[in-house]
Amino acid sequence: MTTTLSRADIDALDKRHRTNFINGLIGFKGVTLLGTRGTDGGSNLAIMSSAFHVGAAPPLIGVLLRPHTVPRHSLENLFEREAYTLNGVDRTMYERAHRTSARWPREVSEFTACGFTEEDTTAVAAPYVAESPIAIALTLVERHTLLNDTVLIVGEVREVRLREDVRGEDGQLDLGALGLVVAAGLDEYHDTRRLARLPYAKVDG
Amino acid sequence: MTTTLSRADIDALDKRHRTNFINGLIGFKGVTLLGTRGTDGGSNLAIMSSAFHVGAAPPLIGVLLRPHTVPRHSLENLFEREAYTLNGVDRTMYERAHRTSARWPREVSEFTACGFTEEDTTAVAAPYVAESPIAIALTLVERHTLLNDTVLIVGEVREVRLREDVRGEDGQLDLGALGLVVAAGLDEYHDTRRLARLPYAKVDG
Repeated sequence: MTTTLSRADIDALDKRHRTNFINGLIGFKGVTLLGTRGTDGGSNLAIMSSAFHVGAAPPLIGVLLRPHTVPRHSLENLFEREAYTLNGVDRTMYERAHRTSARWPREVSEFTACGFTEEDTTAVAAPYVAESPIAIALTLVERHTLLNDTVLIVGEVREVRLREDVRGEDGQLDLGALGLVVAAGLDEYHDTRRLARLPYAKVDG
Repeated sequence: MTTTLSRADIDALDKRHRTNFINGLIGFKGVTLLGTRGTDGGSNLAIMSSAFHVGAAPPLIGVLLRPHTVPRHSLENLFEREAYTLNGVDRTMYERAHRTSARWPREVSEFTACGFTEEDTTAVAAPYVAESPIAIALTLVERHTLLNDTVLIVGEVREVRLREDVRGEDGQLDLGALGLVVAAGLDEYHDTRRLARLPYAKVDG
Protein backbone atom coordinates (compact mmCIF):
# COMPACT_ATOMS: atom_id res chain seq x y z
CA MET A 1 0.00 0.00 0.00
CA THR A 2 1.23 3.46 -0.85
CA THR A 3 0.54 6.74 0.86
CA THR A 4 0.86 10.30 -0.45
CA LEU A 5 2.18 13.28 1.49
CA SER A 6 1.27 16.67 0.08
CA ARG A 7 3.54 19.64 0.57
CA ALA A 8 1.16 20.85 3.28
CA ASP A 9 1.51 17.47 5.05
CA ILE A 10 5.31 17.76 4.86
CA ASP A 11 5.36 21.33 6.16
CA ALA A 12 3.15 20.27 9.09
CA LEU A 13 5.64 17.63 10.30
CA ASP A 14 7.60 18.53 13.39
CA LYS A 15 11.11 19.72 12.61
CA ARG A 16 13.07 16.59 13.55
CA HIS A 17 10.63 14.29 11.76
CA ARG A 18 10.70 16.45 8.62
CA THR A 19 14.52 16.63 8.64
CA ASN A 20 14.85 12.84 8.85
CA PHE A 21 12.14 12.29 6.25
CA ILE A 22 13.51 14.74 3.66
CA ASN A 23 17.10 13.55 4.18
CA GLY A 24 15.99 10.01 3.32
CA LEU A 25 13.87 10.82 0.27
CA ILE A 26 16.52 10.56 -2.42
CA GLY A 27 17.65 7.13 -1.26
CA PHE A 28 21.13 5.93 -0.34
CA LYS A 29 24.02 8.40 -0.50
CA GLY A 30 27.74 7.86 -0.86
CA VAL A 31 29.83 8.89 2.14
CA THR A 32 33.15 10.73 2.04
CA LEU A 33 35.38 12.61 4.45
CA LEU A 34 36.40 16.13 3.40
CA GLY A 35 39.96 16.86 4.50
CA THR A 36 41.41 20.37 4.68
CA ARG A 37 44.36 22.25 6.16
CA GLY A 38 44.28 25.84 7.37
CA THR A 39 46.88 28.53 6.72
CA ASP A 40 47.96 27.97 10.34
CA GLY A 41 48.77 24.35 9.47
CA GLY A 42 45.89 22.83 11.44
CA SER A 43 43.80 20.10 9.80
CA ASN A 44 40.06 19.48 9.72
CA LEU A 45 37.89 16.59 8.64
CA ALA A 46 34.12 16.62 7.97
CA ILE A 47 31.73 13.88 6.85
CA MET A 48 29.77 14.54 3.62
CA SER A 49 27.05 12.69 1.74
CA SER A 50 26.60 15.01 -1.22
CA ALA A 51 29.53 14.31 -3.56
CA PHE A 52 28.64 13.72 -7.20
CA HIS A 53 30.38 13.11 -10.50
CA VAL A 54 30.55 16.22 -12.74
CA GLY A 55 32.82 15.16 -15.58
CA ALA A 56 35.68 12.88 -16.62
CA ALA A 57 37.74 15.13 -18.93
CA PRO A 58 38.75 17.22 -17.14
CA PRO A 59 37.97 15.14 -14.03
CA LEU A 60 35.53 17.17 -11.90
CA ILE A 61 33.62 16.36 -8.70
CA GLY A 62 30.90 18.42 -7.01
CA VAL A 63 30.04 18.63 -3.31
CA LEU A 64 27.25 20.56 -1.63
CA LEU A 65 28.34 22.24 1.59
CA ARG A 66 25.78 23.18 4.19
CA PRO A 67 27.24 26.08 6.20
CA HIS A 68 24.87 25.38 9.09
CA THR A 69 26.15 21.83 9.51
CA VAL A 70 29.64 21.70 7.99
CA PRO A 71 32.18 22.82 10.60
CA ARG A 72 33.13 26.41 9.95
CA HIS A 73 36.83 25.52 10.17
CA SER A 74 36.59 23.15 7.20
CA LEU A 75 34.86 25.80 5.10
CA GLU A 76 37.41 28.48 5.98
CA ASN A 77 40.32 26.15 5.20
CA LEU A 78 38.78 25.11 1.89
CA PHE A 79 38.18 28.64 0.68
CA GLU A 80 41.56 29.95 1.92
CA ARG A 81 43.63 27.16 0.39
CA GLU A 82 41.28 26.31 -2.51
CA ALA A 83 42.31 22.71 -1.89
CA TYR A 84 40.75 19.68 -0.23
CA THR A 85 40.64 15.91 -0.25
CA LEU A 86 37.66 13.54 -0.51
CA ASN A 87 38.31 10.26 1.24
CA GLY A 88 36.20 7.12 0.92
CA VAL A 89 34.64 5.63 4.07
CA ASP A 90 34.65 1.86 4.47
CA ARG A 91 32.95 -0.39 7.00
CA THR A 92 35.92 -0.23 9.40
CA MET A 93 35.79 3.59 9.44
CA TYR A 94 32.18 4.71 9.38
CA GLU A 95 31.62 4.98 13.13
CA ARG A 96 34.72 7.18 13.53
CA ALA A 97 33.76 9.14 10.40
CA HIS A 98 30.30 9.87 11.84
CA ARG A 99 31.94 11.34 14.96
CA THR A 100 33.57 14.09 12.87
CA SER A 101 30.09 15.69 12.77
CA ALA A 102 30.25 16.57 16.50
CA ARG A 103 30.95 20.23 17.34
CA TRP A 104 34.68 19.95 17.92
CA PRO A 105 36.33 23.19 19.09
CA ARG A 106 38.63 25.07 16.71
CA GLU A 107 41.87 23.95 18.33
CA VAL A 108 40.95 20.27 17.90
CA SER A 109 41.63 18.41 14.64
CA GLU A 110 38.94 15.85 13.84
CA PHE A 111 41.76 13.64 12.57
CA THR A 112 43.11 13.28 16.09
CA ALA A 113 39.75 13.46 17.86
CA CYS A 114 38.21 10.66 15.76
CA GLY A 115 41.24 8.40 15.36
CA PHE A 116 42.39 9.11 11.81
CA THR A 117 45.89 9.70 10.46
CA GLU A 118 46.90 12.63 8.22
CA GLU A 119 48.78 11.68 5.08
CA ASP A 120 50.32 14.59 3.19
CA THR A 121 50.51 14.82 -0.56
CA THR A 122 52.52 17.16 -2.74
CA ALA A 123 49.53 17.48 -5.10
CA VAL A 124 47.41 19.86 -2.98
CA ALA A 125 47.57 21.76 0.32
CA ALA A 126 45.30 19.33 2.18
CA PRO A 127 45.85 15.97 3.88
CA TYR A 128 44.47 12.58 2.87
CA VAL A 129 42.95 10.24 5.43
CA ALA A 130 45.58 7.47 5.56
CA GLU A 131 42.97 4.87 6.58
CA SER A 132 40.77 5.49 3.50
CA PRO A 133 41.02 2.80 0.78
CA ILE A 134 40.51 5.50 -1.87
CA ALA A 135 41.27 9.22 -1.62
CA ILE A 136 41.11 12.11 -4.07
CA ALA A 137 43.06 15.39 -3.99
CA LEU A 138 41.22 18.36 -5.53
CA THR A 139 41.59 22.05 -6.14
CA LEU A 140 38.57 24.34 -6.02
CA VAL A 141 37.63 25.56 -9.49
CA GLU A 142 34.06 26.85 -9.12
CA ARG A 143 31.46 27.73 -6.50
CA HIS A 144 27.76 28.57 -6.62
CA THR A 145 25.55 29.70 -3.75
CA LEU A 146 22.11 28.05 -3.94
CA LEU A 147 18.85 29.66 -2.89
CA ASN A 148 18.94 28.28 0.67
CA ASP A 149 22.50 29.58 1.20
CA THR A 150 24.11 26.19 0.75
CA VAL A 151 27.28 26.29 -1.35
CA LEU A 152 28.03 24.02 -4.27
CA ILE A 153 31.74 23.60 -4.92
CA VAL A 154 33.29 21.96 -7.94
CA GLY A 155 36.80 20.58 -7.64
CA GLU A 156 39.26 19.40 -10.25
CA VAL A 157 40.98 16.09 -9.50
CA ARG A 158 44.77 16.53 -9.07
CA GLU A 159 45.71 13.09 -7.74
CA VAL A 160 44.13 9.81 -6.65
CA ARG A 161 45.53 7.42 -4.04
CA LEU A 162 43.86 4.00 -3.90
CA ARG A 163 44.34 0.30 -3.22
CA GLU A 164 46.20 -0.99 -6.22
CA ASP A 165 44.22 -4.22 -6.72
CA VAL A 166 40.78 -2.68 -7.31
CA ARG A 167 41.09 -1.07 -10.77
CA GLY A 168 39.96 -3.32 -13.60
CA GLU A 169 41.49 -3.38 -17.06
CA ASP A 170 38.72 -1.12 -18.33
CA GLY A 171 39.10 1.34 -15.44
CA GLN A 172 36.12 0.05 -13.44
CA LEU A 173 36.75 0.28 -9.69
CA ASP A 174 35.69 -2.62 -7.48
CA LEU A 175 33.92 -0.48 -4.87
CA GLY A 176 32.57 -3.59 -3.16
CA ALA A 177 36.13 -4.86 -2.56
CA LEU A 178 36.97 -1.44 -1.13
CA GLY A 179 34.17 -1.97 1.43
CA LEU A 180 32.73 1.50 0.95
CA VAL A 181 29.53 2.25 2.85
CA VAL A 182 26.45 4.31 1.97
CA ALA A 183 24.21 6.41 4.21
CA ALA A 184 20.43 6.37 4.65
CA GLY A 185 19.30 9.72 5.98
CA LEU A 186 21.51 11.45 8.52
CA ASP A 187 22.81 8.62 10.65
CA GLU A 188 22.21 5.13 9.26
CA TYR A 189 24.94 3.23 7.39
CA HIS A 190 24.83 0.25 5.05
CA ASP A 191 27.36 -1.81 3.18
CA THR A 192 26.59 -3.25 -0.24
CA ARG A 193 26.33 -6.49 -2.20
CA ARG A 194 26.98 -6.62 -5.92
CA LEU A 195 23.94 -7.46 -8.04
CA ALA A 196 25.29 -7.17 -11.60
CA ARG A 197 27.26 -5.16 -14.07
CA LEU A 198 25.02 -4.42 -17.04
CA PRO A 199 25.96 -3.99 -20.70
CA TYR A 200 25.82 -0.60 -22.39
CA ALA A 201 22.12 -0.03 -23.06
CA LYS A 202 21.03 -0.16 -26.71
CA VAL A 203 17.64 0.37 -28.32
CA ASP A 204 17.82 -3.04 -29.98
CA GLY A 205 19.57 -4.68 -27.00
CA MET B 1 49.29 -1.77 -1.02
CA THR B 2 48.25 1.60 -2.35
CA THR B 3 49.09 3.24 -5.63
CA THR B 4 48.99 6.90 -6.62
CA LEU B 5 47.81 8.28 -9.96
CA SER B 6 48.92 11.80 -10.74
CA ARG B 7 46.80 14.06 -12.90
CA ALA B 8 49.20 13.33 -15.79
CA ASP B 9 48.64 9.58 -15.27
CA ILE B 10 44.86 10.14 -15.36
CA ASP B 11 44.99 12.29 -18.50
CA ALA B 12 47.09 9.62 -20.22
CA LEU B 13 44.44 6.90 -19.72
CA ASP B 14 42.46 5.95 -22.79
CA LYS B 15 39.03 7.56 -22.91
CA ARG B 16 36.89 4.59 -21.88
CA HIS B 17 39.24 3.61 -19.06
CA ARG B 18 39.34 7.19 -17.75
CA THR B 19 35.55 7.54 -17.94
CA ASN B 20 35.01 4.35 -15.92
CA PHE B 21 37.71 5.26 -13.43
CA ILE B 22 36.53 8.82 -12.77
CA ASN B 23 32.87 7.75 -12.57
CA GLY B 24 33.78 5.30 -9.80
CA LEU B 25 36.02 7.61 -7.75
CA ILE B 26 33.39 9.11 -5.45
CA GLY B 27 32.05 5.69 -4.44
CA PHE B 28 28.52 4.38 -4.56
CA LYS B 29 25.77 6.64 -5.89
CA GLY B 30 22.03 6.59 -5.34
CA VAL B 31 19.95 5.81 -8.43
CA THR B 32 16.73 7.55 -9.48
CA LEU B 33 14.56 7.80 -12.57
CA LEU B 34 13.75 11.32 -13.76
CA GLY B 35 10.19 11.47 -15.13
CA THR B 36 8.95 14.30 -17.34
CA ARG B 37 6.09 15.14 -19.68
CA GLY B 38 6.34 17.36 -22.75
CA THR B 39 3.90 20.05 -23.82
CA ASP B 40 2.74 17.54 -26.47
CA GLY B 41 1.73 15.15 -23.68
CA GLY B 42 4.48 12.62 -24.35
CA SER B 43 6.45 11.24 -21.40
CA ASN B 44 10.17 10.60 -20.91
CA LEU B 45 12.21 8.73 -18.33
CA ALA B 46 15.98 8.94 -17.73
CA ILE B 47 18.24 7.24 -15.19
CA MET B 48 20.28 9.54 -12.91
CA SER B 49 22.94 8.98 -10.25
CA SER B 50 23.57 12.56 -9.18
CA ALA B 51 20.64 13.50 -6.91
CA PHE B 52 21.56 15.08 -3.59
CA HIS B 53 19.83 16.59 -0.57
CA VAL B 54 19.87 20.42 -0.57
CA GLY B 55 17.59 21.33 2.32
CA ALA B 56 14.64 20.23 4.46
CA ALA B 57 12.74 23.50 5.01
CA PRO B 58 11.81 24.23 2.30
CA PRO B 59 12.43 20.69 1.00
CA LEU B 60 14.93 20.98 -1.87
CA ILE B 61 16.75 18.37 -3.97
CA GLY B 62 19.54 18.93 -6.49
CA VAL B 63 20.34 16.90 -9.63
CA LEU B 64 23.21 17.34 -12.07
CA LEU B 65 22.16 16.93 -15.70
CA ARG B 66 24.73 16.05 -18.32
CA PRO B 67 23.38 17.34 -21.66
CA HIS B 68 25.64 14.96 -23.57
CA THR B 69 24.19 11.89 -21.87
CA VAL B 70 20.72 12.84 -20.61
CA PRO B 71 18.19 12.36 -23.43
CA ARG B 72 17.46 15.70 -25.01
CA HIS B 73 13.71 15.06 -24.73
CA SER B 74 13.87 14.85 -20.93
CA LEU B 75 15.79 18.12 -20.72
CA GLU B 76 13.37 19.93 -23.03
CA ASN B 77 10.35 18.66 -21.10
CA LEU B 78 11.88 19.62 -17.79
CA PHE B 79 12.69 23.17 -18.82
CA GLU B 80 9.37 23.69 -20.63
CA ARG B 81 7.17 22.42 -17.81
CA GLU B 82 9.52 23.28 -14.93
CA ALA B 83 8.29 20.06 -13.36
CA TYR B 84 9.67 16.54 -12.92
CA THR B 85 9.58 13.48 -10.73
CA LEU B 86 12.42 11.55 -9.09
CA ASN B 87 11.57 7.90 -8.64
CA GLY B 88 13.52 5.41 -6.51
CA VAL B 89 14.94 2.31 -8.20
CA ASP B 90 14.71 -1.00 -6.33
CA ARG B 91 16.25 -4.39 -7.08
CA THR B 92 13.25 -5.48 -9.17
CA MET B 93 13.59 -2.42 -11.41
CA TYR B 94 17.27 -1.65 -11.94
CA GLU B 95 17.76 -3.63 -15.16
CA ARG B 96 14.79 -1.91 -16.81
CA ALA B 97 15.89 1.44 -15.38
CA HIS B 98 19.37 1.02 -16.92
CA ARG B 99 17.75 0.50 -20.35
CA THR B 100 16.31 4.05 -20.25
CA SER B 101 19.88 5.20 -21.05
CA ALA B 102 19.68 3.78 -24.59
CA ARG B 103 19.17 6.29 -27.42
CA TRP B 104 15.42 5.94 -27.79
CA PRO B 105 13.94 7.99 -30.64
CA ARG B 106 11.79 11.02 -29.82
CA GLU B 107 8.46 9.34 -30.56
CA VAL B 108 9.18 6.55 -28.06
CA SER B 109 8.47 6.95 -24.34
CA GLU B 110 11.03 5.20 -22.17
CA PHE B 111 8.10 4.28 -19.88
CA THR B 112 6.69 2.02 -22.58
CA ALA B 113 10.03 0.96 -24.06
CA CYS B 114 11.43 -0.18 -20.70
CA GLY B 115 8.30 -1.61 -19.13
CA PHE B 116 7.25 1.06 -16.65
CA THR B 117 3.81 2.52 -15.93
CA GLU B 118 2.99 6.24 -15.84
CA GLU B 119 1.11 7.40 -12.76
CA ASP B 120 -0.23 10.94 -12.93
CA THR B 121 -0.34 13.32 -10.00
CA THR B 122 -2.19 16.58 -9.60
CA ALA B 123 0.87 18.04 -7.83
CA VAL B 124 3.07 18.64 -10.90
CA ALA B 125 2.95 18.28 -14.70
CA ALA B 126 5.06 15.11 -14.77
CA PRO B 127 4.31 11.41 -14.22
CA TYR B 128 5.50 9.18 -11.41
CA VAL B 129 6.85 5.70 -12.13
CA ALA B 130 4.08 3.52 -10.67
CA GLU B 131 6.55 0.68 -9.95
CA SER B 132 8.81 2.84 -7.76
CA PRO B 133 8.47 2.24 -3.99
CA ILE B 134 9.17 5.95 -3.38
CA ALA B 135 8.60 8.86 -5.75
CA ILE B 136 8.96 12.63 -5.42
CA ALA B 137 7.18 15.36 -7.42
CA LEU B 138 9.21 18.56 -7.85
CA THR B 139 9.05 21.94 -9.50
CA LEU B 140 12.19 23.56 -10.87
CA VAL B 141 13.26 26.52 -8.74
CA GLU B 142 16.87 27.17 -9.73
CA ARG B 143 19.47 26.23 -12.33
CA HIS B 144 23.21 26.78 -12.66
CA THR B 145 25.44 25.92 -15.59
CA LEU B 146 28.78 24.52 -14.44
CA LEU B 147 32.11 25.04 -16.17
CA ASN B 148 31.90 21.86 -18.28
CA ASP B 149 28.39 22.80 -19.53
CA THR B 150 26.60 20.38 -17.21
CA VAL B 151 23.48 21.85 -15.62
CA LEU B 152 22.67 21.74 -11.94
CA ILE B 153 18.95 21.96 -11.22
CA VAL B 154 17.35 22.47 -7.83
CA GLY B 155 13.77 21.36 -7.34
CA GLU B 156 11.29 22.05 -4.58
CA VAL B 157 9.39 19.01 -3.30
CA ARG B 158 5.63 19.32 -3.97
CA GLU B 159 4.49 15.80 -3.10
CA VAL B 160 5.86 12.42 -2.04
CA ARG B 161 4.31 9.03 -2.79
CA LEU B 162 5.78 6.08 -0.90
CA ARG B 163 5.10 2.71 0.66
CA GLU B 164 3.22 3.49 3.83
CA ASP B 165 5.03 1.05 6.15
CA VAL B 166 8.56 2.45 5.79
CA ARG B 167 8.38 5.78 7.65
CA GLY B 168 9.46 5.53 11.29
CA GLU B 169 7.96 7.56 14.13
CA ASP B 170 10.88 9.99 13.90
CA GLY B 171 10.59 10.35 10.12
CA GLN B 172 13.46 7.97 9.30
CA LEU B 173 12.77 6.03 6.09
CA ASP B 174 13.64 2.33 5.98
CA LEU B 175 15.48 2.46 2.64
CA GLY B 176 16.62 -1.14 3.10
CA ALA B 177 13.00 -2.32 3.26
CA LEU B 178 12.33 -0.32 0.08
CA GLY B 179 15.04 -2.40 -1.63
CA LEU B 180 16.68 0.65 -3.23
CA VAL B 181 19.88 -0.02 -5.15
CA VAL B 182 23.09 2.00 -5.58
CA ALA B 183 25.39 2.31 -8.58
CA ALA B 184 29.15 1.81 -8.86
CA GLY B 185 30.44 3.71 -11.86
CA LEU B 186 28.29 3.77 -14.97
CA ASP B 187 26.79 0.30 -15.08
CA GLU B 188 27.24 -1.78 -11.92
CA TYR B 189 24.45 -2.08 -9.35
CA HIS B 190 24.44 -3.16 -5.72
CA ASP B 191 21.82 -3.62 -3.03
CA THR B 192 22.56 -2.87 0.60
CA ARG B 193 22.69 -4.39 4.08
CA ARG B 194 22.11 -2.30 7.17
CA LEU B 195 25.13 -1.92 9.43
CA ALA B 196 23.86 0.44 12.16
CA ARG B 197 22.03 3.62 12.97
CA LEU B 198 24.36 5.82 14.99
CA PRO B 199 23.51 8.34 17.72
CA TYR B 200 23.86 12.08 17.13
CA ALA B 201 27.60 12.74 17.40
CA LYS B 202 28.76 14.67 20.47
CA VAL B 203 32.19 15.86 21.55
CA ASP B 204 31.86 14.06 24.88
CA GLY B 205 29.97 11.09 23.36
